Amino acid sequence: DSLTQIQYDTVYNVFSLVIASQLFTSIFIIISLKRVLPRYRQAMTVAAIVCAIAAYHYFRIFDSFKAAFVTEAIGGAGNYVQVAGESFNEGYRYVDWLLTVPLLLLELIAVLALARKVQTSLLYRLIPASALMIILGYPGELSGDNGVRGIFGLLSTIPFAYILYVLFIELTKSLDRQPRSVRRTISQLRLLLLLTWGVYPIAYLLPMLGIDGSDAWVGKQIGYSVADILAKALYGLIIYRIARMKSFADD
Amino acid sequence: DSLTQIQYDTVYNVFSLVIASQLFTSIFIIISLKRVLPRYRQAMTVAAIVCAIAAYHYFRIFDSFKAAFVTEAIGGAGNYVQVAGESFNEGYRYVDWLLTVPLLLLELIAVLALARKVQTSLLYRLIPASALMIILGYPGELSGDNGVRGIFGLLSTIPFAYILYVLFIELTKSLDRQPRSVRRTISQLRLLLLLTWGVYPIAYLLPMLGIDGSDAWVGKQIGYSVADILAKALYGLIIYRIARMKSFADD
Ligand SMILES: CC1=C(/C=C/C(C)=C/C=C/C(C)=C/C=O)C(C)(C)CCC1
Ligand SMILES: CC1=C(/C=C/C(C)=C/C=C/C(C)=C/C=O)C(C)(C)CCC1
Repeated sequence: DSLTQIQYDTVYNVFSLVIASQLFTSIFIIISLKRVLPRYRQAMTVAAIVCAIAAYHYFRIFDSFKAAFVTEAIGGAGNYVQVAGESFNEGYRYVDWLLTVPLLLLELIAVLALARKVQTSLLYRLIPASALMIILGYPGELSGDNGVRGIFGLLSTIPFAYILYVLFIELTKSLDRQPRSVRRTISQLRLLLLLTWGVYPIAYLLPMLGIDGSDAWVGKQIGYSVADILAKALYGLIIYRIARMKSFADD
Repeated sequence: DSLTQIQYDTVYNVFSLVIASQLFTSIFIIISLKRVLPRYRQAMTVAAIVCAIAAYHYFRIFDSFKAAFVTEAIGGAGNYVQVAGESFNEGYRYVDWLLTVPLLLLELIAVLALARKVQTSLLYRLIPASALMIILGYPGELSGDNGVRGIFGLLSTIPFAYILYVLFIELTKSLDRQPRSVRRTISQLRLLLLLTWGVYPIAYLLPMLGIDGSDAWVGKQIGYSVADILAKALYGLIIYRIARMKSFADD
């Protein structure tokens, strides 16, 4: 497969955008830690760590991309082809998600500051389901075969549906115990979660839709990247906002 | 295109000047955070993050520049030409602006400490307009064609004009609620914003003015770089000054 210069530059700059977004959101949240009550600092710390983990993986994804695609044109103004002896390692994403997806769920539960029992029960169900979702997606992503991609995608969708069920049906019951002003922001957060997490399976499907190989590949990279910014950095900033509001409400 | 040694060294040192300015302004502001009242620390934190994001991107711009232009002359005393397989990535600037321009507007609104409602309404108008301005400029900047450059430049000027309108007409109404001593500094800040933000479209125009290719390119790099120092670092320091003055006035 080969990429045009525009495709190459677009992927390059989108990866760079993700690095900057995750890295500086993480630093911002760490600097702002003291601005919320101690009981919400756990959620904020997890949010900062999630963004830091993502920044790290995108440094690696960026380097992997630069090493895997090369051109011989002067000023880089030509087609980029895959080099001998180097692959673009899509696996970094799955390693990243395996760590960050459970942490994102933990963040959400932690900032709600529910009763201990409810928290534990939610986490015992959400965290294994999210790990299973990522692990089942991995063999499909790495396989060049669209049949294998489809089967593992389908299997991975089962725990995905279960997670959404728990978040939307079970969590709703605890929402009315939250301060009024906070309830709306939490609903927004959950909506953001639904919308951004929904992007991942769509990006995963792109190579199966009969779109031209390199267009599908570029679309998938942009899809995963933008979803990662929204699902981690923007999500972390909303967690901060909720923690600030609850800090005022509790005071 | 090729650069003379003087052109190469000038761009090289200007990039280095930007890195140092942004990095140490960021550190200075973080160290000074405790010298203002808590309610102004949000604006200061954002100012520090903006400078840090810029420092990061200029490290990358600098490396991209070094990789893209080379000479074979002993001691570097000769012309620098574009190398095979590497481009100077102008895209970093747009990635940087996409993150920092909304944050600069946020800084300004945050330090004013207006009523919540006015704040929200201003941000809902300014932030999407600023993102649109940058996104529309990007395809024009990357295109080698002056016609495309012109069209996207023109499109990008529409949200630019809207931003200036909101800042100068709408914001003026809230100025009289600020302490007297502060009012003058805020007017200065806004003037700085107008003068420095005006440099960007001018630098963008340079390659279209029939100036010799490499002169126009060098002028554009210097224009963007100097504007970035004024619009982020100097601006952040003025934000700090306003926060200090308001901290005294509120006490
Ligand atoms: C359903 C489904 C998937 C879902 C992935 C999700 C939902 C990932 C979420 C990642 C997040 C939130 C990362 C950011 O931190 C896969 C694995 C693509 C495989 C295809 C089926
Ligand atoms: C109007 C216009 C532009 C305006 C750019 C501006 C106003 C950028 C401001 C950047 C700042 C303030 C960065 C520092 O943080 C472009 C995109 C060059 C394209 C041509 C038309």
